[in-house]
Amino acid sequence: MILGDWGTSRLRLFRADGAGGWAKREGPGIGALDAPAAEVLDRTLGDWRGAAPVRLAGMAGARGGLHEVGYVDCPADERAWRAGAARFRLGDLHVAIAAGLAMPPGAVADVMRGEETQIFGALALDPALGRGAQLVIHPGTHSKWAWIEDGVVTRFRTFFTGELYALLLKSTLTRLEGAAEGEAAGFADGLGAAGEPLLGALFTARAAQLREGKSAGWAKGYLSGLLIGHELAALPEAAAPITLIGAPGLTDAYADALAARGRDCQRLDGDACVIAGLERLED
Amino acid sequence: MILGDWGTSRLRLFRADGAGGWAKREGPGIGALDAPAAEVLDRTLGDWRGAAPVRLAGMAGARGGLHEVGYVDCPADERAWRAGAARFRLGDLHVAIAAGLAMPPGAVADVMRGEETQIFGALALDPALGRGAQLVIHPGTHSKWAWIEDGVVTRFRTFFTGELYALLLKSTLTRLEGAAEGEAAGFADGLGAAGEPLLGALFTARAAQLREGKSAGWAKGYLSGLLIGHELAALPEAAAPITLIGAPGLTDAYADALAARGRDCQRLDGDACVIAGLERLED
Repeated sequence: MILGDWGTSRLRLFRADGAGGWAKREGPGIGALDAPAAEVLDRTLGDWRGAAPVRLAGMAGARGGLHEVGYVDCPADERAWRAGAARFRLGDLHVAIAAGLAMPPGAVADVMRGEETQIFGALALDPALGRGAQLVIHPGTHSKWAWIEDGVVTRFRTFFTGELYALLLKSTLTRLEGAAEGEAAGFADGLGAAGEPLLGALFTARAAQLREGKSAGWAKGYLSGLLIGHELAALPEAAAPITLIGAPGLTDAYADALAARGRDCQRLDGDACVIAGLERLED
Repeated sequence: MILGDWGTSRLRLFRADGAGGWAKREGPGIGALDAPAAEVLDRTLGDWRGAAPVRLAGMAGARGGLHEVGYVDCPADERAWRAGAARFRLGDLHVAIAAGLAMPPGAVADVMRGEETQIFGALALDPALGRGAQLVIHPGTHSKWAWIEDGVVTRFRTFFTGELYALLLKSTLTRLEGAAEGEAAGFADGLGAAGEPLLGALFTARAAQLREGKSAGWAKGYLSGLLIGHELAALPEAAAPITLIGAPGLTDAYADALAARGRDCQRLDGDACVIAGLERLED
């Protein structure tokens, strides 16, 4: 069985290596296709292509992806989510694509594709996550917060944090794109400014370079801290236990920002969760 | 005398037409120069070039502009601002460039170039603005809020509203750049969402298109209302009288957003204010 996470920016395929680990292959994301999606999948599979079925999560199921799959409305449990998957043949290849989740009509409109697979994978990896009220945060281009009650995803909300950060690096906040990695001092200063109105605090990234001799690396760190701090300022005072799911570098930054607010969290690896979720997609 | 407002995106020159009005000429902004600034000024002046001195406000005085001029620290009155101007010759042309304003060391770093000229012009046009506590808001790429006490600019703050809006039109919030003008219904919905965390409310522009059949025009209006609403949410409960200075289309949108918060304001035309300010630059 071949498992795949096909997001906007890249395709990652996983195959059990027979020694308890996973071999990986990479291709372009749905937002960066250089050929029809079916051709890109075929090319990325390479000599993995054969009798093995393929299970995919993410933007593969979006309009303009490999094959459109609907959304399952919240509240959604694993059974409803599995029932929403699309199963079809692509030539001699058996393919399944996981459904996304949507907020139901009447609520503020919101959608996710990919994070739900990580959530159901995390629930399989960590049974404690299926008990009582839990908050799962997926940092990323579009950060997703999902509220879970006894294993049911009751609601979620998207934060535009990662994409906004990328947009700001191309803005007149000056010379940020080519700058060194964000500096820790800037990150801390950005977290410290997160109590101010966001639109008023952004320009400080530029003004502090002009007036206080701050570097572009400081400004990068400042913007990162400011945006993550603002996202996390939306946390209610008495929240459920928090689980961060994602790539370690990003979940570390979020864990630091949570710690600065006096909040604890557990971290789960995004790859491990998406693999576990796709393994659960069919009985 | 020729007066000019040379910002990041365009140069506008004004010359009295002898009938109580102003003739105008336009050239590229300091951020869009296609030749050295002195050449661009010369070309835009055309047959206006002669014995008449030229007075400029805005990014003309920035590093990389026509001639670098320092900032005058707040609190700043008209006299201190006039004393900060640079006066020099460019060939046979007498040029003066107005100083910008800066927040002083110790305060959160902030700078302006151009709005201060409009403020001192507005004070000349409307003597009531020079009495007591006043708040002047300049909507734009970088919206500036200036607090004035008895004619002295005591402090100011930059909001990144306009540039952020332009960045978002190029984002994955989908097909917004080519869309029709923002719809009024979207603007109202955006104002209505301004009480929510900004990073959480941005993605609704996309999700509502995917899930509720909203148009790209609605989404454009929504983002405009959301950002302006968020900027104005920073207003203290009991603020000084508010004056909006800028182009009529933009000040109208801000006046609507203020009215939605139960706040009154007066509007002054940005061109009239910059002309009056440059006229005050020298005795």
